[in-house]
Amino acid sequence: MIKVGIIGATGYAGAELVRILAGHKNARVEWYGSRSYIDQKYADVYRNMFQIVDATCMDDNMEKLASQVDVIFTATPQGLCASLINENILSETKVIDLSADFRLKDVSVYEEWYKIEHKAPQFLDEAVYGLCEINRGKIKTARLVANPGCYTTCSILTAYPLAKEGLIDMDSLIIDAKSGTSGAGRGAKLANLFCEVNENIKAYGVATHRHTPEIEEQLGYAAGRKVTLSFTPHLVPMNRGILATEYARLTRKVTAEEIKEVYDSYYGKEKFIRVLGTDACPETKWVEGSNYTDIGFRIDPRTNRIIMMGAIDNLVKGAAGQAVQNMNLMFGEKESEGLELVPMFP
Amino acid sequence: MIKVGIIGATGYAGAELVRILAGHKNARVEWYGSRSYIDQKYADVYRNMFQIVDATCMDDNMEKLASQVDVIFTATPQGLCASLINENILSETKVIDLSADFRLKDVSVYEEWYKIEHKAPQFLDEAVYGLCEINRGKIKTARLVANPGCYTTCSILTAYPLAKEGLIDMDSLIIDAKSGTSGAGRGAKLANLFCEVNENIKAYGVATHRHTPEIEEQLGYAAGRKVTLSFTPHLVPMNRGILATEYARLTRKVTAEEIKEVYDSYYGKEKFIRVLGTDACPETKWVEGSNYTDIGFRIDPRTNRIIMMGAIDNLVKGAAGQAVQNMNLMFGEKESEGLELVPMFP
Amino acid sequence: MIKVGIIGATGYAGAELVRILAGHKNARVEWYGSRSYIDQKYADVYRNMFQIVDATCMDDNMEKLASQVDVIFTATPQGLCASLINENILSETKVIDLSADFRLKDVSVYEEWYKIEHKAPQFLDEAVYGLCEINRGKIKTARLVANPGCYTTCSILTAYPLAKEGLIDMDSLIIDAKSGTSGAGRGAKLANLFCEVNENIKAYGVATHRHTPEIEEQLGYAAGRKVTLSFTPHLVPMNRGILATEYARLTRKVTAEEIKEVYDSYYGKEKFIRVLGTDACPETKWVEGSNYTDIGFRIDPRTNRIIMMGAIDNLVKGAAGQAVQNMNLMFGEKESEGLELVPMFP
Amino acid sequence: MIKVGIIGATGYAGAELVRILAGHKNARVEWYGSRSYIDQKYADVYRNMFQIVDATCMDDNMEKLASQVDVIFTATPQGLCASLINENILSETKVIDLSADFRLKDVSVYEEWYKIEHKAPQFLDEAVYGLCEINRGKIKTARLVANPGCYTTCSILTAYPLAKEGLIDMDSLIIDAKSGTSGAGRGAKLANLFCEVNENIKAYGVATHRHTPEIEEQLGYAAGRKVTLSFTPHLVPMNRGILATEYARLTRKVTAEEIKEVYDSYYGKEKFIRVLGTDACPETKWVEGSNYTDIGFRIDPRTNRIIMMGAIDNLVKGAAGQAVQNMNLMFGEKESEGLELVPMFP
Repeated sequence: MIKVGIIGATGYAGAELVRILAGHKNARVEWYGSRSYIDQKYADVYRNMFQIVDATCMDDNMEKLASQVDVIFTATPQGLCASLINENILSETKVIDLSADFRLKDVSVYEEWYKIEHKAPQFLDEAVYGLCEINRGKIKTARLVANPGCYTTCSILTAYPLAKEGLIDMDSLIIDAKSGTSGAGRGAKLANLFCEVNENIKAYGVATHRHTPEIEEQLGYAAGRKVTLSFTPHLVPMNRGILATEYARLTRKVTAEEIKEVYDSYYGKEKFIRVLGTDACPETKWVEGSNYTDIGFRIDPRTNRIIMMGAIDNLVKGAAGQAVQNMNLMFGEKESEGLELVPMFP
Repeated sequence: MIKVGIIGATGYAGAELVRILAGHKNARVEWYGSRSYIDQKYADVYRNMFQIVDATCMDDNMEKLASQVDVIFTATPQGLCASLINENILSETKVIDLSADFRLKDVSVYEEWYKIEHKAPQFLDEAVYGLCEINRGKIKTARLVANPGCYTTCSILTAYPLAKEGLIDMDSLIIDAKSGTSGAGRGAKLANLFCEVNENIKAYGVATHRHTPEIEEQLGYAAGRKVTLSFTPHLVPMNRGILATEYARLTRKVTAEEIKEVYDSYYGKEKFIRVLGTDACPETKWVEGSNYTDIGFRIDPRTNRIIMMGAIDNLVKGAAGQAVQNMNLMFGEKESEGLELVPMFP
Repeated sequence: MIKVGIIGATGYAGAELVRILAGHKNARVEWYGSRSYIDQKYADVYRNMFQIVDATCMDDNMEKLASQVDVIFTATPQGLCASLINENILSETKVIDLSADFRLKDVSVYEEWYKIEHKAPQFLDEAVYGLCEINRGKIKTARLVANPGCYTTCSILTAYPLAKEGLIDMDSLIIDAKSGTSGAGRGAKLANLFCEVNENIKAYGVATHRHTPEIEEQLGYAAGRKVTLSFTPHLVPMNRGILATEYARLTRKVTAEEIKEVYDSYYGKEKFIRVLGTDACPETKWVEGSNYTDIGFRIDPRTNRIIMMGAIDNLVKGAAGQAVQNMNLMFGEKESEGLELVPMFP
Repeated sequence: MIKVGIIGATGYAGAELVRILAGHKNARVEWYGSRSYIDQKYADVYRNMFQIVDATCMDDNMEKLASQVDVIFTATPQGLCASLINENILSETKVIDLSADFRLKDVSVYEEWYKIEHKAPQFLDEAVYGLCEINRGKIKTARLVANPGCYTTCSILTAYPLAKEGLIDMDSLIIDAKSGTSGAGRGAKLANLFCEVNENIKAYGVATHRHTPEIEEQLGYAAGRKVTLSFTPHLVPMNRGILATEYARLTRKVTAEEIKEVYDSYYGKEKFIRVLGTDACPETKWVEGSNYTDIGFRIDPRTNRIIMMGAIDNLVKGAAGQAVQNMNLMFGEKESEGLELVPMFP
């Protein structure tokens, strides 16, 4: 039985970890860390867990926690994990960080986009980028995994095979992404009030969103060159789901069947990536509550562009689900343990 | 392994059966019946099931089906199950009917409220009303179970203990219920279009809704007398969930603690009924995707009324989940098998 | 031209005043008071008003304001208007208070339900309850109008004629109300976040909501006796709209046509109250953005109850619209000036 | 008083015409045409119009209608207007067609994208494309105006000044558009049911949507060359609103201030186009219910791209509002008559 500690258990991503781990056969949450709700019953904060979780919220003492659990998930604001982590901790426990602290290899890029000083750059080299389908091998032996961002997971997986195969012109890549509101977290902010979000759609963070360098770095590895791209997130009046619509020029004439074959050769055996037929566009509702990434595409011969589309549940494959998938890999569990979640429709 | 046939597998309740049974260890769907989609891949109709269900939709030949499966779920319009069922079928297989055909013992009440002739009244006596927590014993040996309606499940369970204990004046009982839109089914009707439902709330079927006599009959058994009550359903702009707000005069002076004890004495050991503390009101989101019924109440000393509140997911405890719970009871399975669904929030 | 000052112009009700007054021929907002946004451009807070309102937010100095405008709207938290108002102010300007400070005649009832001390009880007698269709005469000559609450406007108007005519047993009256989320205001509270409200419905303030004594007082005047009733509000995932479903026993045998005639005799000439035909249930979407109250009803002969239903837009007839209607009456304007807003559908 | 006939008055665009014209001082609807609801009271189909519109739905006899009214709006499926129109009709009345029949000058392009034969190509030359801010002069004298599509209005206005000034590389232009569901019309289709749209987002018509050639033709006039671009619409779970996010490479180095000046030089005096400051992104909610187009942009120096964003209410500026604006121009009315609709928030 894997003993699990969660720091940040009362944010939406933390709560999703709790939901998923409740169905994991070989893992048990021992520590529900939440600075804001210390000493309150967890089920009073998330009443969906009434009679399922009986625990009380704890503080976020990572040192103490490290001695008690096999793995710590940090579902915390940027900078917190980096400020707490140290060699002692990593020698005692594994860490899966759901924040951005260890996603970018270049500390200066991190500091430029996140506007905070990185407190533990010494672990950047060691940290493994936890995009399971791409870095499976390295994840298995990692002590510290940087769990990818929600937009980035969706954006990267959707373009990866074509980037890797040189089928798309990386300079032409534009990612227009749409997210449900849970991605904005559970903080009580005016902009996230029901009446402000409902019956509304807007772009935000245009040309400046922090997931941009993360996508660029990973697709850069795929393409074998530095990548600079446009990424625009939008806020959609729904709770869950990310849809990424990605545009790129094709580098040569290909048929839809050839593209489909490329996707299948990369993802055909992946349980959590479903490449749709050539006539279907992914919809976020089809993956809601599950760890799936649904991918579709359409070639536009008029413009010689391909439009790639990917859909995930931002809290599952985009956060907690992928974190558990990483945990499974790190502990030699069946990769899908606890993640056999069937998408809920409607 | 229980072999399962579903007639009406492409309605919302049928699709929820498919979702739930996908996680059941000892049951397997062998027949996805759907008159509307015969010969189409099930996963083309419900793309959430892509790569999970590989089957093709079949017709609704109940005779043929009976010889191939251990249990048939009929998630079909009123009248269909009654028109197809016969002794042959019931001698070969068990039937769990999600329609209203076998819920009311009095055929004349059925025909008055449903405005259709009952084609198989000879089975009304035998049919067991499948409200698991109330009729568990009889369900275990039943061949034919009438799975309760969504509004009724919620309405009955919320008032049952107080009705049974004589704590509320049944003549004063008023049930004001609110439902998500999936309860209206997947038929392409103008009134259920997104733009008609969204940003809107309305009552419908006022004083005439068909679930009324079903609630009256069951609460009548509890109270030991004929019950006539007011039931008003409302359509709420959300996919899933039913909230029943129930008003009744107390028959004697009681404290909140006493009421809580009564609820606990009935439901304290029930896995799927959660009696909330005296300070909490149930919310549909806390049970979404799960088989739970959440119950709360408040005593109003000013009016000497009690306000009881119950929340369920209409497609789970209100339809497919309870149907699977019934199946588990009928086949000697663990009652919660396949139903350990943690509510999804947000 | 009526010169208008608004205190609390950046709450949802205040913003709705701004929207409505933008279309009023004989009124002009001179003062956009907002403690939270002093010195910021109003259109930066509410960008829908970009290029329509050019003003900057001011503080809430009511004394100063009184000398500059003909009427002050206070769309502020409970207690603020009472703490600022005085004879000087009322001798210079008229005041329409959208808070609850002057709605209840009995100061002890106010203090019991609102848990705050009333700072200006000396004006309670003078204040006129601004339910236009009921108190039109007194409003015309008032200096201080207490603009009714949103739930109360809807609840009272729906039952008023039958209460007045003695057709319903006031002891049996139960009001089950459902409101969009704008009624909760623009404060950044966790409970009002999109993800907490969306796909959810709940009751709140059960047996304790502050609009209860207001409804009781006004319906008590209609019935000519003290009224105690049950009132339960619910939060619905939509921006605007209140639906009140009201249950009462009939005091004598009546037909639907007779009831319709009673409603018509009270409201037939009222522009802003629409009594629907006997076969229609009101829906909040049909009045969205307008000052209408839509009323319908159904008699249930089985229970000898009548179910009355009323729908309003909580921000218009339930707040800003009625406030402008009051202003029109107080200043001898055409009662509907600025309020000829056609409901928006969908 | 302009006498107005509407063919297709019970679709969402037709109903919005009715809503807007109810507030027009010099126009009166004389004919509510609706094949589906002949002889039914209009207010029974759209109950928001109860006690506002007393008329009964008529058939769609365009010849007869032409002799009775000054202008006919056709808010009908593609092909209908072209099949009914003739010289007789145009000699008696003006026609504003909200369908696509007269938007594309090249009949072969129409037939290729719409897959129907054009029945009145002889009027294509005469028809004026009714994008008011661009073609104001020609509209004033037109007999037949082709009212632009919803996506196209938003897409064209957002890019027009930069296309005209040669500031963007037209070969690089990508338009990613998001629409509320009213754009799909009031037909009872499964894909538009509440439960299918709610909590969901998807792209559709990728690389094949019929508004593509319309955008290309108009932006081609602006750029002075043939334009081929990518256009991808998405369905968003909201009733109203279109947001277009447009990407293009800049042809030369420019500052945000210079771009702002260009927009202002084109739109600074336009009542219905609001160019936001350089720090704001448009949101559909800010224009809801109004005839405004809100435009914003951001320059991304990393990619040398500009991201332009435009927001409209698809039923107002994207359909009925612009149609009335066209009518005002054609009849010498004040251009904004009936259109001084303040956006509703929230």
